[in-house]
Amino acid sequence: MNYIAVDVGGTQLRAALYPEAGIEASVIKAIPTKGEGTVVERLFGLLESIWPKDQAVARIGLVVPGMVNPIEGIVYITPNIEGWRDLPLIEIVQKHFNTPTVLGNDANLAALGEWKYGAGVGHHNLIYMTISTGVGSGIIVDDRLLVGAHGIGAELGHTIVMPDGPMCGCGKRGHLEALSSGTGIANFVKRKIEEGRHTILTHENKPITSRLVAEAANQGDELSIEAFNIAGKYLGIAIANLLHVFNPTLIILGGGVVKAGPLLMDPLQHSLAESVVSPQYLSDFQLTTAKLGDQVGLVGALALARG
Amino acid sequence: MNYIAVDVGGTQLRAALYPEAGIEASVIKAIPTKGEGTVVERLFGLLESIWPKDQAVARIGLVVPGMVNPIEGIVYITPNIEGWRDLPLIEIVQKHFNTPTVLGNDANLAALGEWKYGAGVGHHNLIYMTISTGVGSGIIVDDRLLVGAHGIGAELGHTIVMPDGPMCGCGKRGHLEALSSGTGIANFVKRKIEEGRHTILTHENKPITSRLVAEAANQGDELSIEAFNIAGKYLGIAIANLLHVFNPTLIILGGGVVKAGPLLMDPLQHSLAESVVSPQYLSDFQLTTAKLGDQVGLVGALALARG
Repeated sequence: MNYIAVDVGGTQLRAALYPEAGIEASVIKAIPTKGEGTVVERLFGLLESIWPKDQAVARIGLVVPGMVNPIEGIVYITPNIEGWRDLPLIEIVQKHFNTPTVLGNDANLAALGEWKYGAGVGHHNLIYMTISTGVGSGIIVDDRLLVGAHGIGAELGHTIVMPDGPMCGCGKRGHLEALSSGTGIANFVKRKIEEGRHTILTHENKPITSRLVAEAANQGDELSIEAFNIAGKYLGIAIANLLHVFNPTLIILGGGVVKAGPLLMDPLQHSLAESVVSPQYLSDFQLTTAKLGDQVGLVGALALARG
Repeated sequence: MNYIAVDVGGTQLRAALYPEAGIEASVIKAIPTKGEGTVVERLFGLLESIWPKDQAVARIGLVVPGMVNPIEGIVYITPNIEGWRDLPLIEIVQKHFNTPTVLGNDANLAALGEWKYGAGVGHHNLIYMTISTGVGSGIIVDDRLLVGAHGIGAELGHTIVMPDGPMCGCGKRGHLEALSSGTGIANFVKRKIEEGRHTILTHENKPITSRLVAEAANQGDELSIEAFNIAGKYLGIAIANLLHVFNPTLIILGGGVVKAGPLLMDPLQHSLAESVVSPQYLSDFQLTTAKLGDQVGLVGALALARG
């Protein structure tokens, strides 16, 4: 039996054909999301082009960023694909290919992929967090993906960790994403520059990004170090809260901001250790980094398809 | 088949014998926790005194407040029972009665009881919170009790909702319990009195409790109203966070502080509505009050025993 996994991004549609076992794809193919025809038609074409000859496909797994309902198979909203609103994607794909189809959002399926094939193998209770432009997350409870009644749970990026704190991209204040994402780090520096704080960074020549902030911090720039201290502190608080709620044995961190290393991890570890109410929460717990790299979307969709 | 449920409190040991179905006990009996013999011996005596003649007991369910590990059957620590530290309670009871025994903490089993027999019947994803001296909680995810890898999850009372906020009874700062419990409400008023704020309450004659604060608030006392506004605001923020994490269809509130009604619920509803990132989280969601009253411990233990 074969499995097909599809990563539906705003820029690219990527699809892979997988054999019965393992995470080595027999074929991977990508096309631009935008081009001739609708996105659904392009998706159909892509799948047809990798469909195995004379062999059955057991299940198709779709990973879509944004707000999706995996239970009812609906894409509520996905960034960068126009017109995909309340789209019954499972039904559409299932009908066309006459093949069972499953769906999940990117961070949830990344958690599932890391749990089944990556950094989380052997753990039964874990949380995956990706810290990049935003903060995405997926949660495994007793070997099952937590998605909630309508599939829109596990949204840790938009939980409040500092009431009345800085503005988030979503328009609300004090979210983890507003404090600890790459955007949050860059925005902190920009706000402080506007307040007149000294820094070796300027945002006149090129836009300030968390990567530039990390470089400046590594050169000793105080404001940049402070930006990572704050990001790490609130990520540590969020993780401590998660330990009290989920008592997991593992938290996996992925995403570009984590590459800043000790700049982020030192304040994170400090505030985590300060914030747990009992050492018992840390006694069988590890914080680690993601393993699956940029295949995580496809591998997550594969994990879901294999069930 | 019969089931026995036992509520192990610091003041009372209560046990009940239940038939095959329903939550009407055939016998309920309580004895003081302290007295002749060890607590374990007194517990044995109590169970023997209600043990059915010539009928089998399928399972014994134990509810114990504090930090317990239901998976390994250990009571890590329970308030008000001296010497119960890392006690392998399941093994002890199981051996003595030669009967399968299960264990859970009070708030977790209250959640299980309300889900199976109370306000949560028909829901698959719900959270129970008891707001009294402290804040206890239990979480049902896809019809299963969430306890975490070592059974110490679902501790919402000790999650941080206001970093560097007021001191909690546990010695850490800014916990939900420090802001929204009865103790948190009373402490807020006491702090403000010490700062010289005007109020009709005094803490010279009798200790200030959240019930007295509620009475004063209902008489128009501004400081007391403010105390409930803060408790409600942070409870609303905590609940919004829970909606983003668990996407439940129900949150059940129990405990004495909830009896303050609109004093607590109005600011709670306001901050909840303000704090969700999408109305989708509220579209199939209810906030309700607990149903099982002071039987909740026994009924929760019964729910666990019936499996």
